[in-house]
Amino acid sequence: MGRNIFSSCVATGRFVPEDCSYNADVEQACGLDAGWIERRTGIVRRPIAKPEQAVSDLAIAAGKRAMMNWEESRPEGAGASRASVGMLILATSTPDHLLPPTAPYVASQLRLGTIPAFDIAVACSGFLYALQLADDYCRLHERSVLVIAANLLSRRVGPKDPATAAIFSDGAGAVVISPSSQPGVIAIELESDGSGYDHLCIPSGGSRSPIQEDTYQKGDHLMQIANGMAVYRYAVESMAKLGQRIVNEAGLSIEDLDFWIPHQANRRIIESVQSRLGLPDEKVGVTVDQFANSSAATIPIALDYFREEGKVRSGSLLLLTAAAAGLSCGASLIRWS
Amino acid sequence: MGRNIFSSCVATGRFVPEDCSYNADVEQACGLDAGWIERRTGIVRRPIAKPEQAVSDLAIAAGKRAMMNWEESRPEGAGASRASVGMLILATSTPDHLLPPTAPYVASQLRLGTIPAFDIAVACSGFLYALQLADDYCRLHERSVLVIAANLLSRRVGPKDPATAAIFSDGAGAVVISPSSQPGVIAIELESDGSGYDHLCIPSGGSRSPIQEDTYQKGDHLMQIANGMAVYRYAVESMAKLGQRIVNEAGLSIEDLDFWIPHQANRRIIESVQSRLGLPDEKVGVTVDQFANSSAATIPIALDYFREEGKVRSGSLLLLTAAAAGLSCGASLIRWS
Repeated sequence: MGRNIFSSCVATGRFVPEDCSYNADVEQACGLDAGWIERRTGIVRRPIAKPEQAVSDLAIAAGKRAMMNWEESRPEGAGASRASVGMLILATSTPDHLLPPTAPYVASQLRLGTIPAFDIAVACSGFLYALQLADDYCRLHERSVLVIAANLLSRRVGPKDPATAAIFSDGAGAVVISPSSQPGVIAIELESDGSGYDHLCIPSGGSRSPIQEDTYQKGDHLMQIANGMAVYRYAVESMAKLGQRIVNEAGLSIEDLDFWIPHQANRRIIESVQSRLGLPDEKVGVTVDQFANSSAATIPIALDYFREEGKVRSGSLLLLTAAAAGLSCGASLIRWS
Repeated sequence: MGRNIFSSCVATGRFVPEDCSYNADVEQACGLDAGWIERRTGIVRRPIAKPEQAVSDLAIAAGKRAMMNWEESRPEGAGASRASVGMLILATSTPDHLLPPTAPYVASQLRLGTIPAFDIAVACSGFLYALQLADDYCRLHERSVLVIAANLLSRRVGPKDPATAAIFSDGAGAVVISPSSQPGVIAIELESDGSGYDHLCIPSGGSRSPIQEDTYQKGDHLMQIANGMAVYRYAVESMAKLGQRIVNEAGLSIEDLDFWIPHQANRRIIESVQSRLGLPDEKVGVTVDQFANSSAATIPIALDYFREEGKVRSGSLLLLTAAAAGLSCGASLIRWS
């Protein structure tokens, strides 16, 4: 171990498709009253990728921007930045293919050489899980890690199912994590709870129920929410619990936080957790209205967005929290570099 | 950091289905001459899971055996072993579902509490990538990691396609990695090469080409090998290169190795690498004849098998190597605990 025994978030990038689906269209397709989606979820529109785009296209675009933003802050030039990246982690639930993994292709398109590159799947907790792996790798191996979270969920929702069509979207966010002599990633807490495995599921297409003619006809290759209320409750309780715990264990209080970015699933979940944590509105990062829920990608997209907005600044103390189907959840406390 | 700054492999377990498909049947279905499969691949039979089993069933069974084997070697009892596991990593290309991830369910069925649990996808390199993440986590967080690699590939092969039906199988292997004061996991080297992304692929079912009526009819939800020769060459060259490099960088020579376990894709690949490395037959672990190719699962299955056979013993110096679609590859040098 050298002197850099911490890791730090040093750059962000995002790619959010320009094309959107708007509430009026989804409400009509799903037979919902006008205004239902915004009232229930806070979502106004959902960015939707072009038909010819796969998740790797979104991931590469976000990764490029993060690398460019990083290079602009360094005197060494692009080659040096690329050469200092030792690993690429792609958090996705919608890889290009069921085989092979997508990350090696993304790494090669970003000209990162032959670095280790792999996909992880932890649904909406994917970015925080990847952050844990990146933090470990950075600290032990003294090389930077490019974490990209990307999803193309519009292709896995039932177009007439309000529980999924109203919520999910496409997008990618990327963060460069680098070895640091100061604690940037102060703490990460991760949990799982497989007792809620069946609450939200794509029934067919995996090894449990391979795609067959009849499962395709029934739409079982699309997302189905069997127990939305249980997922909702888990999201509120786990994000409030882990958020409070990680702040306490760092010897801090909620008032010390400069900004909180939760996973963007639904405005009502965010408001419930906000009220439990006791955070004022100006410290809460909300993008679900315009970017909707791209699962693991929402937190790095929001980090990049609020960097641009000036809400995430050098020295900012950030709380990130996520909860996911599976179930799983996570929180991280970050001092921005 | 405490005194345990290394990690060590402390227990293994496997679950290989009893039912098998035999060469004569596959040769008949694929229109091959009798003896073709064994001549070309060294494979005699392929373990095949029961229709009601999903990958989680295989993973849980292998994980249980690894935990039992670990507990037998410890005086503290099962509860203490479970409580010392801090993370579960499931390397799979065939999760139960396309959403949610499978690992949280596996962790809950193994009664591991609410530990972080996630899926990684790196095709046949999955176990060695997971080993890297487990080693990092173990060393920094001083808790054990349960690594399980499991696949149910029989559901993703074309029954009449000799390139896939002859090769791929079902199975799961598990290894407990624990903090250690002695270097057990001596080194790990991982690489990727996305320039070969298209060589082996399931065209449809991911975000690039979602399942549609016509892609299902064409069989595009099944594995297709566009350039088997390129994958073969990459496997031979990358395993020989990384194997030699990791031994050299540890200041050792090939003669110091007690046993080599390569990913089990094909006996001819193994023989080519063996000849390049210059290893005698008695130091080469081959299971592809009886267990075939269950992708990421082959190495931990073989570890457990050769533990039972007495080839992997306390103090054995092991070389593990893998190469995968994507492309990716890896090697690890391990002193068995």
